[in-house]
Amino acid sequence: MSSLALSTDLYELTMMAGYYTAGLEASATFDLYVRELPPNRSCLVAAGLEQAIAYLEGLRFTDEDIAHLRTLPALQGVRREFFDQYLPRVGFSGDVWAVEEGVPVFPPAPLLRVTAPLPEAQLVETALLAIVAFQTSVASRAARMVGAAAGRQIVEFGARRAHGIDAGVLAARAAFIGGCDSTSNVEAGRRYGIPVSGTMAHSWITAFPSEFAAFRQFAEIYGDRSVILLDTYDTIAAARSVVAGGLAPSAVRLDSGDVIALSREVRAILDGGGLHRTQIFVSGDLDEWRIASIVEAGAPVDGFGVGAALSTSSDAPSLGAIYKLAEIERGGAPVPVMKRSPGKQTFPGRKQVWRVFEHGVAVEDIIDIEAAPGESMQAEPPSTVRPLLVPVMRGGRREHPPVPVADLRAQQLAEIARLPAAVRRLVDPARYRVRFGSALESAVKRFL
Amino acid sequence: MSSLALSTDLYELTMMAGYYTAGLEASATFDLYVRELPPNRSCLVAAGLEQAIAYLEGLRFTDEDIAHLRTLPALQGVRREFFDQYLPRVGFSGDVWAVEEGVPVFPPAPLLRVTAPLPEAQLVETALLAIVAFQTSVASRAARMVGAAAGRQIVEFGARRAHGIDAGVLAARAAFIGGCDSTSNVEAGRRYGIPVSGTMAHSWITAFPSEFAAFRQFAEIYGDRSVILLDTYDTIAAARSVVAGGLAPSAVRLDSGDVIALSREVRAILDGGGLHRTQIFVSGDLDEWRIASIVEAGAPVDGFGVGAALSTSSDAPSLGAIYKLAEIERGGAPVPVMKRSPGKQTFPGRKQVWRVFEHGVAVEDIIDIEAAPGESMQAEPPSTVRPLLVPVMRGGRREHPPVPVADLRAQQLAEIARLPAAVRRLVDPARYRVRFGSALESAVKRFL
Repeated sequence: MSSLALSTDLYELTMMAGYYTAGLEASATFDLYVRELPPNRSCLVAAGLEQAIAYLEGLRFTDEDIAHLRTLPALQGVRREFFDQYLPRVGFSGDVWAVEEGVPVFPPAPLLRVTAPLPEAQLVETALLAIVAFQTSVASRAARMVGAAAGRQIVEFGARRAHGIDAGVLAARAAFIGGCDSTSNVEAGRRYGIPVSGTMAHSWITAFPSEFAAFRQFAEIYGDRSVILLDTYDTIAAARSVVAGGLAPSAVRLDSGDVIALSREVRAILDGGGLHRTQIFVSGDLDEWRIASIVEAGAPVDGFGVGAALSTSSDAPSLGAIYKLAEIERGGAPVPVMKRSPGKQTFPGRKQVWRVFEHGVAVEDIIDIEAAPGESMQAEPPSTVRPLLVPVMRGGRREHPPVPVADLRAQQLAEIARLPAAVRRLVDPARYRVRFGSALESAVKRFL
Repeated sequence: MSSLALSTDLYELTMMAGYYTAGLEASATFDLYVRELPPNRSCLVAAGLEQAIAYLEGLRFTDEDIAHLRTLPALQGVRREFFDQYLPRVGFSGDVWAVEEGVPVFPPAPLLRVTAPLPEAQLVETALLAIVAFQTSVASRAARMVGAAAGRQIVEFGARRAHGIDAGVLAARAAFIGGCDSTSNVEAGRRYGIPVSGTMAHSWITAFPSEFAAFRQFAEIYGDRSVILLDTYDTIAAARSVVAGGLAPSAVRLDSGDVIALSREVRAILDGGGLHRTQIFVSGDLDEWRIASIVEAGAPVDGFGVGAALSTSSDAPSLGAIYKLAEIERGGAPVPVMKRSPGKQTFPGRKQVWRVFEHGVAVEDIIDIEAAPGESMQAEPPSTVRPLLVPVMRGGRREHPPVPVADLRAQQLAEIARLPAAVRRLVDPARYRVRFGSALESAVKRFL
């Protein structure tokens, strides 16, 4: 079991000790955001917030953690009070504002904003980035596939491709929030209440003396809930044997070959045998592009099983999310800060993101200084404006109980539907408009 | 905390119940392997075996697990004895042969071979794939970067890019086995004894009223162990202020801009101030190609910090590893099995991989049926032959205590050095020769 407090980069701890030593415990605000969309994405779908809150709530240094830190050569210059007095009492005591899970986000809008005493706000950087960026990348990819599937089901079954057991469970959660219908991951089902589904593997077939013996045995146990895998030896012959053998599976699965052609042949064979209600599922290295091409071909496919493309967000396995100091209290007053590194500048001040809707469709996001919304708030009907960052923790405690993932999924589907169709399309999507409000523009200019 | 037994795909459980119901508890052998190398890799470096063994040793169904499974609609057809009698006593009671961590592997050679009663061997598929494939992908990428760095240090600091907290810890372990020198991940350091290192973030700089105040404060605490980040505002000005301010950091870090040119200017400034021992570290979206170009330019860079490219194995975020039934006992005799799906065929029989060395250099691997080594064993001096699959579990228990990661890392460096130089080179590497022995060739032919 990982220590939460030690699940961080060493430099967070050296800086934390440094801030403590320097007496820099003033309140600081950090933004967690992505600089730009990865290729092939027209939006991000926020996810992982619940795990971020749980991490912050649970954060503390155990005696064992502190004993370990005392042994680190890198911390030898740090004075003893840091270990003896500070670490035993420190946790996360700050405020968090965040975009709710399932809501589309457009860089560089913050996904999360942390305000806490500087050493605490610094400590949590590494884990917050890992938690939020991973689930956000998976949910974003899932939303694309769900769009491409145009109403057909998508089962996430990427556990075996995920970056370890835990990553698989988190990926299943994020994929479901992104709109997938179910997961193969039993633990994700248990933990989050996600519907689970499954079929059979090729090993089931090859474990029996004949393919049909394997089919029949499965059908004897699982009856009309069976999903029969057809491609172990010859897909068409297998489909014929299902019909000839009088089986009535709920679905068949095609896992290799030209699935567009095969699905048509298999559909005809099933229909010819009266199995009109037996569905056809397709799997095998699917992504949004392959799903779209199968759908566009009009292939009689009822659902898709997707693995690595979801559970590793394979086309964007990291989002490059960052966590940057935006404001710090000096002499009791908040001071905006900004770094100017070439190509890597940050944006100063405590921010809010305003989403502007016209006739119910989101038309632009305005990132601005929170305390000076100015124009951002002056929407006239039929425009409406909604702030995307909402308070989720105050004084280190969560504001609301965890939201069921089914609600987050429903929210995601509703919010995506409110984006312009041109932004949602798979091929050559339009760029959603994101701009800085005038207060933020002015704040940036003061640093240049 | 995840349930180990439920951290699997639903179909493993439906099949497990099916095998149990069908009385198919005979011994079965599965191979875990990768069909082909991902682009840009000339070998894989085995990693993750220790976590695989720990998973298998710890595998059991708790009362809570079983209670949950009873509620699943997908398992409603299964008879009660499966839940009442079988699941409470089942665990992993089989044998595992595997390639040791740190050893280079060439597809399609098995990384792991499991022999166990069929339901158990089936159950463990999902988790074994996730555990072994992830660490293997990271260790393989790390080995490429270590080669490209040509003796310069590499610090893994990808925790924030990893797929959750746990994935970050596992990535740090695999990167170290792959030859990295240290990690920023404090938990990975604590758990596995990996050296940890760290510098400072831009937020440390921006938290102070001036950059030099930030440098000085850090140096006051950490003295000659300080690593100073130079690029927050202006790298060259920052380097000059280090010298002018009389600081003597152990290293400086460049995180943006033209690092080849900047490293030369910074080296000159440091040397001009007598700071000959202050090293220069470079970070910022590094991979093996950028490392190689910096090294080839002769830039005065002493080490590299690498994030996402390591912790997500970004160019191959999943290896496409598979776990396939190769042999099953029928009527007390082992029967080789094979699936013939187009482009996805498997290979029959219980196998061994023989690595042939000539004058101490690995020249080819021969995958063959274990019981019939034939030619594979007939090496004549100066050739030697070594079997790569070694027993690591018997009867569900580990054969050896965990190996310290420092030993695995040393093993990896030694084994990689024994590959032909043409296979190890970054650009256009030669393909290492892998072939089937005659017994395996014949076994495959019998299925075609």
